[in-house]
Amino acid sequence: MVKKQGFVKQITSRDDDFAKWYTDVCLKSELCDYSSVKGSMVIRPTGTAIWEKIRAVVDARLKETGHQNVMMPLLVPEHLLLKEAEHVEGFAPEVAWVTMGGETELSERLAIRPTSEVLFCEHFKTVIHSHRDLPVLYNQWANVMRWEKNTRPFLRTTEFFWQEGHTCHVSHEEAEKEALMILDMYVDVCENILAIPVVTGVKSESEKFAGAEKTYTNETLMYDGKALQINTSHHLGDHFGKAFDITYTDKEGKEQFVYTTSWGLTTRTIGGMIMVHSDDRGLVLPPRIAPTQVVIIPIAQHKEGVLDKADELKGILSDVATIKVDDSDKQPGWKFSEAEMKGYPIRIEMGPKDIENNQVIVVRRDTLEKMTVPFDDTLPTVISELLEIIHHDMLAKARKRQEEKTRVATTKDEFNRLIEEGGFVLAPWSGDEAVEELIKEQTGATSRCWSFDHQQDDLTGLKDLWNGEPAKYMMHWAKAY
Amino acid sequence: MVKKQGFVKQITSRDDDFAKWYTDVCLKSELCDYSSVKGSMVIRPTGTAIWEKIRAVVDARLKETGHQNVMMPLLVPEHLLLKEAEHVEGFAPEVAWVTMGGETELSERLAIRPTSEVLFCEHFKTVIHSHRDLPVLYNQWANVMRWEKNTRPFLRTTEFFWQEGHTCHVSHEEAEKEALMILDMYVDVCENILAIPVVTGVKSESEKFAGAEKTYTNETLMYDGKALQINTSHHLGDHFGKAFDITYTDKEGKEQFVYTTSWGLTTRTIGGMIMVHSDDRGLVLPPRIAPTQVVIIPIAQHKEGVLDKADELKGILSDVATIKVDDSDKQPGWKFSEAEMKGYPIRIEMGPKDIENNQVIVVRRDTLEKMTVPFDDTLPTVISELLEIIHHDMLAKARKRQEEKTRVATTKDEFNRLIEEGGFVLAPWSGDEAVEELIKEQTGATSRCWSFDHQQDDLTGLKDLWNGEPAKYMMHWAKAY
Repeated sequence: MVKKQGFVKQITSRDDDFAKWYTDVCLKSELCDYSSVKGSMVIRPTGTAIWEKIRAVVDARLKETGHQNVMMPLLVPEHLLLKEAEHVEGFAPEVAWVTMGGETELSERLAIRPTSEVLFCEHFKTVIHSHRDLPVLYNQWANVMRWEKNTRPFLRTTEFFWQEGHTCHVSHEEAEKEALMILDMYVDVCENILAIPVVTGVKSESEKFAGAEKTYTNETLMYDGKALQINTSHHLGDHFGKAFDITYTDKEGKEQFVYTTSWGLTTRTIGGMIMVHSDDRGLVLPPRIAPTQVVIIPIAQHKEGVLDKADELKGILSDVATIKVDDSDKQPGWKFSEAEMKGYPIRIEMGPKDIENNQVIVVRRDTLEKMTVPFDDTLPTVISELLEIIHHDMLAKARKRQEEKTRVATTKDEFNRLIEEGGFVLAPWSGDEAVEELIKEQTGATSRCWSFDHQQDDLTGLKDLWNGEPAKYMMHWAKAY
Repeated sequence: MVKKQGFVKQITSRDDDFAKWYTDVCLKSELCDYSSVKGSMVIRPTGTAIWEKIRAVVDARLKETGHQNVMMPLLVPEHLLLKEAEHVEGFAPEVAWVTMGGETELSERLAIRPTSEVLFCEHFKTVIHSHRDLPVLYNQWANVMRWEKNTRPFLRTTEFFWQEGHTCHVSHEEAEKEALMILDMYVDVCENILAIPVVTGVKSESEKFAGAEKTYTNETLMYDGKALQINTSHHLGDHFGKAFDITYTDKEGKEQFVYTTSWGLTTRTIGGMIMVHSDDRGLVLPPRIAPTQVVIIPIAQHKEGVLDKADELKGILSDVATIKVDDSDKQPGWKFSEAEMKGYPIRIEMGPKDIENNQVIVVRRDTLEKMTVPFDDTLPTVISELLEIIHHDMLAKARKRQEEKTRVATTKDEFNRLIEEGGFVLAPWSGDEAVEELIKEQTGATSRCWSFDHQQDDLTGLKDLWNGEPAKYMMHWAKAY
């Protein structure tokens, strides 16, 4: 028995100061580090490994559904970025500009891509000629940059990493189907890989992507009750097709504009995962994304046979999980704390007594529950099943909290109070943008989405809480990251 | 039998105009496309898939040898880039500078990383404290930028993609071992994946990386007789450790500087692969890197059973190779030419007569050799063995050409003549940098490396061909990309 588990690195409590807690977790679990460029971060090995796992999962699903990866240039000439007025308005204030190449001033400024929309459009124009060339289903894994003033590791950084999908189709229906199929895939990744429950729906006109016909979104609640748009999928209609003159010859020989979609999932996902699951002891990683799923901590490792047994255990479990033995020369108590800080889903403790009794101590990171488990043939099954249980428990716990923090407002005062308390507030809305403005001004909340779950609601008799007009939407509202 | 194989897209002959041929192959095989930013390109799906395969192979080998991936910021503050004088001198003329963030002029210019050396050094300083923290074996997959005037797809572009490894060690010996281990890995990737034979050795003082103690290199000859440095591995000694004050406490409690290495393999590799293997019909892809290894072209595909049989064939072969059926509505002759342009290692033709005779026609892309092969249980083995044969034949052919184009010069005149004819010229050298300058000025050739194969040569009595001093090195010289 270890009497005192001195924390390796003390962190702020999440109930005391959520923002400080979040930064503490990011840095002390060694996911990232500061860099000398304000707003940019160094993503350290564990953070990178998590992003690589997300990338592998999403990439495989995109390839299964016929998407191909391409690599677009980093820089966008100013005239090209300015080509589509609505689109550029959405990004211009946030662009980093290259003005010098070597010792020479450039004749035209070049933007570091805030998104590659216009580059894809320009390329589509050169590769699409006939209906036989469609659909074009492209994706790229890239870094992009938005010159944000207030930044936060993973959640909002000037440079971030993402996949951006860009597709072209012969019809409105096909583009719509694509945008929704991707949204579904994102839901699956959030819930079944990251254990993050989401509310899925469509953005309001004022919250949608610049240039989109419809922006579909997955929204989720953080531990502090603020919402996060965790990914989005846009149906762009023929808006970009017309703006960039991307046409094809249809089966009847007629020239037609393409319908396009775009969609993205970013390193912000990692920030969301931290804010949903982690606690005052540090990171809590969902088992299906954890680069190391089980850490084995030998007790009294200087005693004969202990380290050998730990290695044997590692060998036995390595078919069912990714394992690490912490055989560093620190005290076990420190190792426990460090394992908790780093969020390994399962920790296995094993000392001479356990070896004598043919058992190991298994500790779940999510609940901190300890159990004594026989060290025999059944152990791999126990561990592999426990990893699955942890995943489902983490998802269920987050879902329960999200549901508890989703409440319906029937009056303006109630709305304001609930927003102040945090969480999603469901309230009827007429669709009037002036109301969105007003709410934002008075409460800081924004409309998050018109969720699919509420699109069949019977709104008869319901009125917009602000302007008294008939309600058209039962919207999710929240303060958001 | 197809009588006329009309080329889908005519390209320049490589003997007529090698530069034009190269660009034609890159564009018409659809590996890449031009972009609206001079010197940057769009890497299309096949080009991207090739890079992803190279990435997967290298990444797996790096992870097997204990390396971890990280992700560093894109931008480097000017003062940090300027910190190490020798290093910055190597890059300053080629840097793209960000001077505006949104509407605001920045107080300090930010360079788009030409390499991330200084960012890694800055980070190492914060994560390395004790000898227990060493070695640190980091790598990143990233885009970098060098503001080149003369660009060429893949071979020299302003933005390019690479992996850059950066490691820290306790001793000179350990760093040396690391640099050489990576060099070996690169040789393996070039020869055993890309079928590119290399000459491995060390760069001269004037040709080494800015700040390196030693630069190891793999050099290879293109079809036109020009050399290409296809990748490099640098032993940096304690140079960067001292410049950036990266220290650790050793076992005796003493403060010590770290020894570092860095090494990189870029998208330039794809350019080298094209220039070594391809021909006047287009791209020739080595089987182990080809995203699609076998293309099946049905003949008279409108006839009953032909497409079904092609799909059956695809099913049968998909365990041993990546397969595509070209069932587009083009004529077979066009499909053959297109298959040749795109460089699929094997093409299988199959029409009603072949089906009747239980056979298929197999065509090798590298030799254009045609063979009739029974369509029975042995076919998967035949195809999988043929892919291996093609790999080895392509490597052997390239090696033979490289060896034939490597000649020894015993006089200055002979040297000048051989350089003019192209290929590697082996010549004794005193080590005098003035001689390198002179040769470059007079012939355009540079010293490529002092190859490991010639480091044991007995140079007794041999003299530098230019200054008559005793020879210290038997160098490889060539005009180079």
